Amino acid sequence: MASTARSQLQLCFSPSALRSYLAEFISTFFFVFVAVGSSISARMLTPDVTSDASSLVATAVAQGFALSGAIYIAVDVSGGHVNPAVTFSLVLAGHLTAPVAMLYWASQLLGSTFACLLLRFTSAGQAIPTSRIATEMTGFGGTILESVMTFALVYTVYVAVVPRHPGHGNCGSLTVGLVAGACVMAAGSLTGASMNPARSFGPALVTGDFKNHAVYWIGPLMGAALAAVFHQSIAHPNRPSSPSQEPTV
Amino acid sequence: MASTARSQLQLCFSPSALRSYLAEFISTFFFVFVAVGSSISARMLTPDVTSDASSLVATAVAQGFALSGAIYIAVDVSGGHVNPAVTFSLVLAGHLTAPVAMLYWASQLLGSTFACLLLRFTSAGQAIPTSRIATEMTGFGGTILESVMTFALVYTVYVAVVPRHPGHGNCGSLTVGLVAGACVMAAGSLTGASMNPARSFGPALVTGDFKNHAVYWIGPLMGAALAAVFHQSIAHPNRPSSPSQEPTV
Amino acid sequence: MASTARSQLQLCFSPSALRSYLAEFISTFFFVFVAVGSSISARMLTPDVTSDASSLVATAVAQGFALSGAIYIAVDVSGGHVNPAVTFSLVLAGHLTAPVAMLYWASQLLGSTFACLLLRFTSAGQAIPTSRIATEMTGFGGTILESVMTFALVYTVYVAVVPRHPGHGNCGSLTVGLVAGACVMAAGSLTGASMNPARSFGPALVTGDFKNHAVYWIGPLMGAALAAVFHQSIAHPNRPSSPSQEPTV
Amino acid sequence: MASTARSQLQLCFSPSALRSYLAEFISTFFFVFVAVGSSISARMLTPDVTSDASSLVATAVAQGFALSGAIYIAVDVSGGHVNPAVTFSLVLAGHLTAPVAMLYWASQLLGSTFACLLLRFTSAGQAIPTSRIATEMTGFGGTILESVMTFALVYTVYVAVVPRHPGHGNCGSLTVGLVAGACVMAAGSLTGASMNPARSFGPALVTGDFKNHAVYWIGPLMGAALAAVFHQSIAHPNRPSSPSQEPTV
Repeated sequence: MASTARSQLQLCFSPSALRSYLAEFISTFFFVFVAVGSSISARMLTPDVTSDASSLVATAVAQGFALSGAIYIAVDVSGGHVNPAVTFSLVLAGHLTAPVAMLYWASQLLGSTFACLLLRFTSAGQAIPTSRIATEMTGFGGTILESVMTFALVYTVYVAVVPRHPGHGNCGSLTVGLVAGACVMAAGSLTGASMNPARSFGPALVTGDFKNHAVYWIGPLMGAALAAVFHQSIAHPNRPSSPSQEPTV
Repeated sequence: MASTARSQLQLCFSPSALRSYLAEFISTFFFVFVAVGSSISARMLTPDVTSDASSLVATAVAQGFALSGAIYIAVDVSGGHVNPAVTFSLVLAGHLTAPVAMLYWASQLLGSTFACLLLRFTSAGQAIPTSRIATEMTGFGGTILESVMTFALVYTVYVAVVPRHPGHGNCGSLTVGLVAGACVMAAGSLTGASMNPARSFGPALVTGDFKNHAVYWIGPLMGAALAAVFHQSIAHPNRPSSPSQEPTV
Repeated sequence: MASTARSQLQLCFSPSALRSYLAEFISTFFFVFVAVGSSISARMLTPDVTSDASSLVATAVAQGFALSGAIYIAVDVSGGHVNPAVTFSLVLAGHLTAPVAMLYWASQLLGSTFACLLLRFTSAGQAIPTSRIATEMTGFGGTILESVMTFALVYTVYVAVVPRHPGHGNCGSLTVGLVAGACVMAAGSLTGASMNPARSFGPALVTGDFKNHAVYWIGPLMGAALAAVFHQSIAHPNRPSSPSQEPTV
Repeated sequence: MASTARSQLQLCFSPSALRSYLAEFISTFFFVFVAVGSSISARMLTPDVTSDASSLVATAVAQGFALSGAIYIAVDVSGGHVNPAVTFSLVLAGHLTAPVAMLYWASQLLGSTFACLLLRFTSAGQAIPTSRIATEMTGFGGTILESVMTFALVYTVYVAVVPRHPGHGNCGSLTVGLVAGACVMAAGSLTGASMNPARSFGPALVTGDFKNHAVYWIGPLMGAALAAVFHQSIAHPNRPSSPSQEPTV
């Protein structure tokens, strides 16, 4: 028993696992840097108006492009999750063990926090924008929206990026980015379209503003769990639904 | 006779057919969610101006990205139609039987309607924008425009996505998305560039506003029929034009 | 001698050649429809301001997306020129005979003209915008700019689309579209970044406004000729520079 | 010893090396032409406002598209660096000898300068915009930001474009362009997101304005060096870290 636990621990800190955490840290850092930075850059250019559709285009396209790149550079090392909801979904689907997933989460949250700290210190006084829901919306409505969009995002990850289904080739990471960008344009004014607890956690921690923060954990994790169920049990039922005896990491 | 009808019916409700309907439902839901949501999000950001070219960019790019993703995630299951006009065209070209196509249509229209309902209830009071033609245009002009653009879209689907012509690889769904995005930017201020009866039906049903709705059925279906004729008889005449004895679904 | 001319003529009107002309007509129609339509749609949304950077984004992205699609759907039939300058360059490089090229040109110019006529008649009173140079620029400066940008575009076509150099696969047409979109954003306010005589000819013919029209023929044809020379003689000198004895069409 | 130096020199001026310099010149010319031109074109369209988020979108998307194209057309000839920081990083990683790298740098800086000269002379009086940091930022903060973004860009180049790691296929240059575009949207209002000494050198030389110019050399070179170390030693440790005995050019 003890030896199993020890070998489990060894797997968590094997060189290839450590490289995975580093890859997740770098990719999440980059993605959140662009997501938050593009909001800051767009806001600096439109100081006299409170908001503007071109700011929405800027941050949506930026997040789509950045997520494509972030997944692309990490996919061969860590699987390119860049998102705790993706990691959670892959644990449910049996692609990843829980201890490894915990360290993925830590790397992602750390990457997001460092990206926000960098932007705060280099931009000299620019406030870090946090994920927030439109004033007329309820927390419940926001959670449903985040959940639906994360379902679409994670379902796309299953089809396009998860290594067990090759054949879609190297446009996979691109397609995930396009889906993310589309969602930001669809719900940018409603919930901010985070679809990613790490993307919302860093700004919340750095600003100390955790208002409605639960929306950005419950929604994405629910949507991601649903995507695992749908993809494994319904859309592609012939594949083993829970191969937890042979995790890929 | 009766046994043929029964086996026909069995084909319509085989597990793989049911999965196709589900895939069409999910993909059309996602596409219409982004198409309608991006209009709402852009409008919420520009409350004081009636319209703005950056709103056009937002919704056009969003629809292009979303259609690429929607086709990509459904293509291996249902063929990735996401559009009753595409389904109609493939029936004419003999790729699909009429009963199966009816259930594709139902799934697509249902997906679109649910997407609009979700946006209405979560966005708390935002009106759902419907497809409409510019005030100075005639319904006939709008129908012609929708028809021409749907021709381009469905012709691209034939070249890029229809499984019988592989070799273009995995940028196929991307190219269809680019063509759709380009059309929205071209005719967004004229007809809204729906090119898809499902995309227009959901908002019309949810708002109860069916003004000029026929434009968004007649135009796309005409254009899609023309694309089937052109692609099968003229552009690639060596392929069998109507292999209806062996439908792929 | 006479029999050679006759067989030459037969080649010009063989079924596969006729399909090529049709493909060029359709693709150029689509490209010009989007290029001109996106200017109209953006202008209709910003009636009170004379110009706006988001209109530039709209038309640039639209043209990039549309050119990718237009090339993609025609490349297997006609080579996907969609541009008289590309056809001209391929004649110089020996990929096409002059009589066939003439009929390519005719198809392209006809496609462009029909696209403008369609937009004029369906849009009910919208003026067709023509390619024009900024008031403070000279025709010579405009010609040089168009020439430089067309060089980049046609050079990319040589690397990405011309069938003799496979291996870059199916992102070829996408890359050509990206280059075109980038050029429109770079010089949209200077010359309009036509890089394509057909794209400028249709609007000029339909509006009767041929002011500075020569810029959009001399510039692109010069740039395209230069691209042929550079690509064949310098960048890839080991390939036969003028295989005119075996044209691919 | 002398004969080694002579053969070294011969390698620097071999026909294939000369073609590499020409390819770098053309691609950097094109990239800087679009980067600077898109700022000019967007500024000409918004004369009455000092700045606007749609200008940011225009230049960011333009640079992303142009970099994809610039790398794509040069990658088979010169490796498609288009950036002195990439060249520097590849020298550190042992892919290139220092003398060849010097000539790469010269070609890149020359291409950038010629692009700015062309824009100045053809645009008749438009000022060439230089890379500059936001007034409230420090040079140190700007250097860190440029360094972090260049790290992401060059790391992506290592994964996507460097020929030793094939298998990602032809979306490689596209992904690098997306990452560049994302960074411009993230830090466009902070440092301009140059990530490329050549992109900043041409405008500085042509306008004579070298204010804060060191930021755009030190930052990118630091980030590029870090990317070489990370990619070779940590992320993919099994590959030889410094195969300087067999440079690829």
